[in-house]
Amino acid sequence: MDKFFIEKRIYYHDTDCGGVVYYANYLKHLEEARTEYCIKKGIDLKQLGKDGIYFVVARVEIDYKASARYGDIVQVTASISDVKRSSLKFYQQILRGPSILIRAYTTWVCVDGNFRPISIPHEVKKLLTAES
Amino acid sequence: MDKFFIEKRIYYHDTDCGGVVYYANYLKHLEEARTEYCIKKGIDLKQLGKDGIYFVVARVEIDYKASARYGDIVQVTASISDVKRSSLKFYQQILRGPSILIRAYTTWVCVDGNFRPISIPHEVKKLLTAES
Amino acid sequence: MDKFFIEKRIYYHDTDCGGVVYYANYLKHLEEARTEYCIKKGIDLKQLGKDGIYFVVARVEIDYKASARYGDIVQVTASISDVKRSSLKFYQQILRGPSILIRAYTTWVCVDGNFRPISIPHEVKKLLTAES
Amino acid sequence: MDKFFIEKRIYYHDTDCGGVVYYANYLKHLEEARTEYCIKKGIDLKQLGKDGIYFVVARVEIDYKASARYGDIVQVTASISDVKRSSLKFYQQILRGPSILIRAYTTWVCVDGNFRPISIPHEVKKLLTAES
Repeated sequence: MDKFFIEKRIYYHDTDCGGVVYYANYLKHLEEARTEYCIKKGIDLKQLGKDGIYFVVARVEIDYKASARYGDIVQVTASISDVKRSSLKFYQQILRGPSILIRAYTTWVCVDGNFRPISIPHEVKKLLTAES
Repeated sequence: MDKFFIEKRIYYHDTDCGGVVYYANYLKHLEEARTEYCIKKGIDLKQLGKDGIYFVVARVEIDYKASARYGDIVQVTASISDVKRSSLKFYQQILRGPSILIRAYTTWVCVDGNFRPISIPHEVKKLLTAES
Repeated sequence: MDKFFIEKRIYYHDTDCGGVVYYANYLKHLEEARTEYCIKKGIDLKQLGKDGIYFVVARVEIDYKASARYGDIVQVTASISDVKRSSLKFYQQILRGPSILIRAYTTWVCVDGNFRPISIPHEVKKLLTAES
Repeated sequence: MDKFFIEKRIYYHDTDCGGVVYYANYLKHLEEARTEYCIKKGIDLKQLGKDGIYFVVARVEIDYKASARYGDIVQVTASISDVKRSSLKFYQQILRGPSILIRAYTTWVCVDGNFRPISIPHEVKKLLTAES
């Protein structure tokens, strides 16, 4: 497992009538883990937004290997797998103990207030990829 | 049934692992019906927002009488039950044919961009309460 | 503030384009706090469900006093305000430090697998209302 | 544009505080279009579920090209791009008139009640891929 992860309990609002977590709701868990990863790295997404610098999701590839159920405790990892001039890619897993439920790659593009790509600020790039 | 209603199908994303619609998700259906009611009455909430006039929900009272399930077709009504200087109340039902599933009262307050109550514009009040 | 509360960060998925938390999403926070309250009291809702005993929401009264925003840390309280033969009422607040954002009463009805009201099991009633 | 599509209005509950539709919520729109596609083709997912035959999402690849906003009317297409023994792939777009906002591939696996892959029933396969 990647070094960084958050732990979450699965509630009713995560699930659907198939008895397991609804496929779109895992993307909320992934958002939470990416946000906490940034906070841990010292990146203040809210302040960046006030400065007109945003990260928007440009692509998600997500594999559903197994399902989480109501009451489960899951771990959601986040690590950076690639950084380019104006984009970066997260690799994330959702696990229930030793079982990998979800594997996902999410591409973030750095944009200005008009959704136009801009270079990721040097300082942010440094923080994102710093060792723990 | 009230004269105005929208019709919706229930999808997986509406439900939870109890096998029925998740209790918070009915509030999305209620929002949709109120929005469509306003559109039908000629009220452009988006334009009002651009003019710095917003309607925010100040209170919801909702009774869950029976449950909607995946695949159900439900009707969501909307009517105005009360109008005051800076607030108004919607009465809404969610029905599955003759069965009343949900009864709800939602209070909207008219606010400016700083969430301070303002008088509902006269023109809006007239449109909201006009006969069909 | 009530003795029992959970603490949560507000993420993008909680908010809407009004810039604040979407009105229905607070009900997810309320669910989470009620669930954690039950866990703390030693009540296993999942096991009760396997035994054919469910708690379903019959009514919500919720007052929206102020809004939570992206990045906020909020506290969500839960306490029992009333217990009857087959129903009980939670009183909950969502706070951001000293500010009360939300006040809500939620009525749970104890039902069997066919959504028919049944008496709340004596043991559950005892646990729910025990002094922490 | 693909022949089959549904049309939807974007409501507050679809959006986030970035001012546009939240990235996970497009997956709900994609679900709705796939469901309506199946209904149009004469496939009753609910009845299949009662017969112990389920389709679960095994993979999603989604590209976010541009954003939908509150009040937009969008079109959500659905077509089958590949069919195998126990899985099939949907190709879907979300458009706002001539603008492509979203492109997505979703893989469904046909499973039994224990989430074990089974062959897609011959009749279902025939209906899914039938012309109009």
